[in-house]
Amino acid sequence: MTTENKLSALRKIMERENLDAYIVSGTDPHNSEYLPAVWRQREWISGFTGSFGTVVVLKESAGLWTDSRYFIQAEQQLKGSGIELHKLRIPSAVDYPEWLVNNLPSGSRIGLDSFCISVSDAKRLKLQLELKNCKVIENTDLIGDIWMDRPALPDAAIFMIPEETTGCSSGKKIKMVRRFLKDNHADYFVFSTLDEIAWLFNIRCNDVEYNPVAISYAIVGQEDTFLFIHRPKVSASCLKALSNEGIEVRDYHQILLFIDELSKDKCCYVDTNTLNYAIYNRITSHCQIKEATSPIVLAKSIKNKTEIEGFRQACIKDSVAMTKFFYWIEKNIDKHLTETSASDYLTQLRAKNDGYISNSFENISAYGANAALPHYSAVSGKDIELQPKGLYLVDSGAQYTHGTTDITRTVALGELTHQEKEDYTIVLKGMIALSCAIFPEGTRGCNLDAIARQPLWQTHRNFGHGTGHGIGFFLNVHEGPQSIRQDLKDQAIVAGMVTSNEPGLYREGHHGVRHENMILCIPVETNEFGCWYGFETLTLCYFDTSALLTELLTQDEMNWLNEYHQKVYEKTVPFLTNEEAAWLAKKTTPIRNH
Amino acid sequence: MTTENKLSALRKIMERENLDAYIVSGTDPHNSEYLPAVWRQREWISGFTGSFGTVVVLKESAGLWTDSRYFIQAEQQLKGSGIELHKLRIPSAVDYPEWLVNNLPSGSRIGLDSFCISVSDAKRLKLQLELKNCKVIENTDLIGDIWMDRPALPDAAIFMIPEETTGCSSGKKIKMVRRFLKDNHADYFVFSTLDEIAWLFNIRCNDVEYNPVAISYAIVGQEDTFLFIHRPKVSASCLKALSNEGIEVRDYHQILLFIDELSKDKCCYVDTNTLNYAIYNRITSHCQIKEATSPIVLAKSIKNKTEIEGFRQACIKDSVAMTKFFYWIEKNIDKHLTETSASDYLTQLRAKNDGYISNSFENISAYGANAALPHYSAVSGKDIELQPKGLYLVDSGAQYTHGTTDITRTVALGELTHQEKEDYTIVLKGMIALSCAIFPEGTRGCNLDAIARQPLWQTHRNFGHGTGHGIGFFLNVHEGPQSIRQDLKDQAIVAGMVTSNEPGLYREGHHGVRHENMILCIPVETNEFGCWYGFETLTLCYFDTSALLTELLTQDEMNWLNEYHQKVYEKTVPFLTNEEAAWLAKKTTPIRNH
Repeated sequence: MTTENKLSALRKIMERENLDAYIVSGTDPHNSEYLPAVWRQREWISGFTGSFGTVVVLKESAGLWTDSRYFIQAEQQLKGSGIELHKLRIPSAVDYPEWLVNNLPSGSRIGLDSFCISVSDAKRLKLQLELKNCKVIENTDLIGDIWMDRPALPDAAIFMIPEETTGCSSGKKIKMVRRFLKDNHADYFVFSTLDEIAWLFNIRCNDVEYNPVAISYAIVGQEDTFLFIHRPKVSASCLKALSNEGIEVRDYHQILLFIDELSKDKCCYVDTNTLNYAIYNRITSHCQIKEATSPIVLAKSIKNKTEIEGFRQACIKDSVAMTKFFYWIEKNIDKHLTETSASDYLTQLRAKNDGYISNSFENISAYGANAALPHYSAVSGKDIELQPKGLYLVDSGAQYTHGTTDITRTVALGELTHQEKEDYTIVLKGMIALSCAIFPEGTRGCNLDAIARQPLWQTHRNFGHGTGHGIGFFLNVHEGPQSIRQDLKDQAIVAGMVTSNEPGLYREGHHGVRHENMILCIPVETNEFGCWYGFETLTLCYFDTSALLTELLTQDEMNWLNEYHQKVYEKTVPFLTNEEAAWLAKKTTPIRNH
Repeated sequence: MTTENKLSALRKIMERENLDAYIVSGTDPHNSEYLPAVWRQREWISGFTGSFGTVVVLKESAGLWTDSRYFIQAEQQLKGSGIELHKLRIPSAVDYPEWLVNNLPSGSRIGLDSFCISVSDAKRLKLQLELKNCKVIENTDLIGDIWMDRPALPDAAIFMIPEETTGCSSGKKIKMVRRFLKDNHADYFVFSTLDEIAWLFNIRCNDVEYNPVAISYAIVGQEDTFLFIHRPKVSASCLKALSNEGIEVRDYHQILLFIDELSKDKCCYVDTNTLNYAIYNRITSHCQIKEATSPIVLAKSIKNKTEIEGFRQACIKDSVAMTKFFYWIEKNIDKHLTETSASDYLTQLRAKNDGYISNSFENISAYGANAALPHYSAVSGKDIELQPKGLYLVDSGAQYTHGTTDITRTVALGELTHQEKEDYTIVLKGMIALSCAIFPEGTRGCNLDAIARQPLWQTHRNFGHGTGHGIGFFLNVHEGPQSIRQDLKDQAIVAGMVTSNEPGLYREGHHGVRHENMILCIPVETNEFGCWYGFETLTLCYFDTSALLTELLTQDEMNWLNEYHQKVYEKTVPFLTNEEAAWLAKKTTPIRNH
């Protein structure tokens, strides 16, 4: 079926249901960023594969709303589909709720699947639509009616990770939630976000590509705890282990029954930023509801000593894979390597590491102009050959049982233009500036973001994505609550948080640069001016100094790079062949002012 | 009457009114920062003279809530008063609404004067107090019952400033408001903020010390415009000028009658961030109400070409006064100068400038350890003598008919300690960093703030106030909507905005440093990455290079300073005596790497 055919099939059902518009959200009942195949309805209807975007279908037209990470990709993927691209996160951006108000006649009816929209998004939408007396028709999964080969819910088995790895038992984590309930005089907290549930119960699975989570809900009460999950996914031994921590397992869909049986005097806490609107409505119709950010969000982001040590080991393993990879690229650059063949080889190298489970997201292996698409996805057959010139950008990571990784390196495959070198160097200056930042208690990501951007801004350059996102521990590679970006997010960077540090620069049609390390927030000092924090760089992998214009670096920046390279060499070399080791020694040779 | 006596008199009336607590806000019916004497009830009851603070009186205790600008001052002024200091803007801060909820028994009654609290503050307070079934008893001006020598409302005459000075007629400004009303389908906008009204009608007065505004309300309708003001303040010629612009003058208190006579189908817009709760309640009981940020706030902050040229001239005048002042200090340092005598002399020098109306705030003339109080106020007789050593900080400004100024310089009066020099230099690095910042369209003050703080943060130093505030045009020296500080304020820095750039450093018991310039946001370039903005420094006055550790400055920083000094010299020298000119030439001699 072409996109045109799908749209016209959808419009027929819209007509049957008397709908003027239908919203196909880019998420699932668990507000996931990466979706199990069954809930990739937005991708199915539009062909757009980015991780963020909403499609709105009207009788005569259709639109996709996404952000600057995906502008170029969306334009390509929507070509000829009849779906218009609406850009978000730009000064003149109009999000789809406001757009609907401006473009629909008063009294229109708008359908959506209320399992696949968060409470806060649904409320924002309804608030807007009420301005024009429009009505939201909930719980209409119209895509289900026309998507004939829709995949089934996944049924892989869950597994438990031990306290030696997580540093904290599920029992202790449940106690933390109970303390929250007690302090806030409530009976239950309903959790729907998959990584929160995986963290809480120390369970993992592979229901979602790249994210080691299980499709489930969880409810923690003052006395009892429930995991709602497709029962065949839980083996007898897991059932026993969960039971030992006081966790009762019920079937996934039983959560609705559980809610229906709650008495009116019970009070449930929910996190409306993530809970789906269907479950929310079900709860409000049966008992009292209170709203709060899930207490797991912050707790999960502050890594304990065991988790941090796991991350350190994971980063050494990543460094070994990346070093072997770039060594191999250099030796074989004349062998018709392509973006996908190289990417596949990198995955093979990573997979050899102990504790490797999967990649943590789809490798970005982007050569030349393709790297100007920050989230480029190379497709075998449509990708290009690497040439012995220009820049090659590789953004990749793994799920190890003891930590998640996310690293980007951009390397020269041969001769570079002056602008490639200048961009490469200035982005590195930004990355180093954030690596070295010292800041007082309470500093938020939006306060720090300009520190990484300053070297770019001073030369009138910028990049359209965030500088940093939180990273889960053997969990989602993107997690909150912290981020380092311009958005006004009221979350301080706290000691123990692991965040990416990834400034970039993209010149459409030419090249792209991104340097990305994982950084751990650490306490530095307490003095008369307060408590001071800084970052420890966890990621260990050389930067290609052949791409640098060293005259643009300050002595402090060169010192940082030289000290970093010394550490990279020491930690990586035990796992390399002699040839690779000699090669890495050359790559990590200290640079000097010419 | 001592503070103790005042508190006990207030408690007697609280008992009569059956109140468990009484809130004495630090503002007036116009949400002013600087208050006419009649509304300085918070100062009267507590003795605390800072520009920000709220007193809460309970039956057995009392507290003052203020921010870090005033911690040291408040501790001194509250000593022995029985009023406890509660610190705001620190990580563990609890503001008075939350504190009341935590400390009052359920069902308590809390009194306040609802003319002297903004709608948003009142709503926030009520929301908190409802958690404990507490009741807010509005419109109880209990201070009025016990403040026997309370000053009267001021009665000075208003004056008009011509379009040659403002660059925009009142008629055009009113049209802008009408466009807002039309776009938003409303009948009236009710304005209560004094500088907004002064801007709108191009009127000025001296009702409030330092702020050239008149106590008034304004209402703009689709067809008619009203100024509510004490009638004797408006001369016949002003009345005629206002009438020519279609502005009808009514008495100050007639606004209540005007509201009472509105028909139910009328719709009034108000800005609940600033409107007082009493007027708000009056409107809601008579007609429809809509809430929005006043359209004047942003319009007023974006200065037109005429205003910018006025600022430039004002800054030259300020430079002349400041240069003559520091020359005089240096020549007379052995003559027993005191903080207040020096301050008085500076005011005399400023007053000689054409167009000088008044100072724009109380001079801060702070020597040695006194400068560690960021908002120190020297009192004659209690102040100290300047000595030929250490740092002397002067923060001052003027209201000229063609612009408002605000400048801080810290100078060495003789030998300095290494720490004084280091602090002086590092604060200057912060100020230069912000002066040179380049940033893309949409960048907010909280995104920029860290740029000024980085040099301090990197050496584990910080300051407890904002880096920058908006500055009015012959209006309040502090104005919004923009600011440069850590707070999450969603207001971009826009071309035409004039903001202060004033990092500092304060070591209690030792010394204080602050460097402050006024900076104008200007467009720099538009390229493939968007529109770029930067700052033009408006303030012109030398920095004391004798206090610098030049080895801490980069070549770029030295270049900035040398170029700045060259401009300062050129613009200032025409107005100096030969001796002063020779002296300034020495002060502005380029510095070099030693």
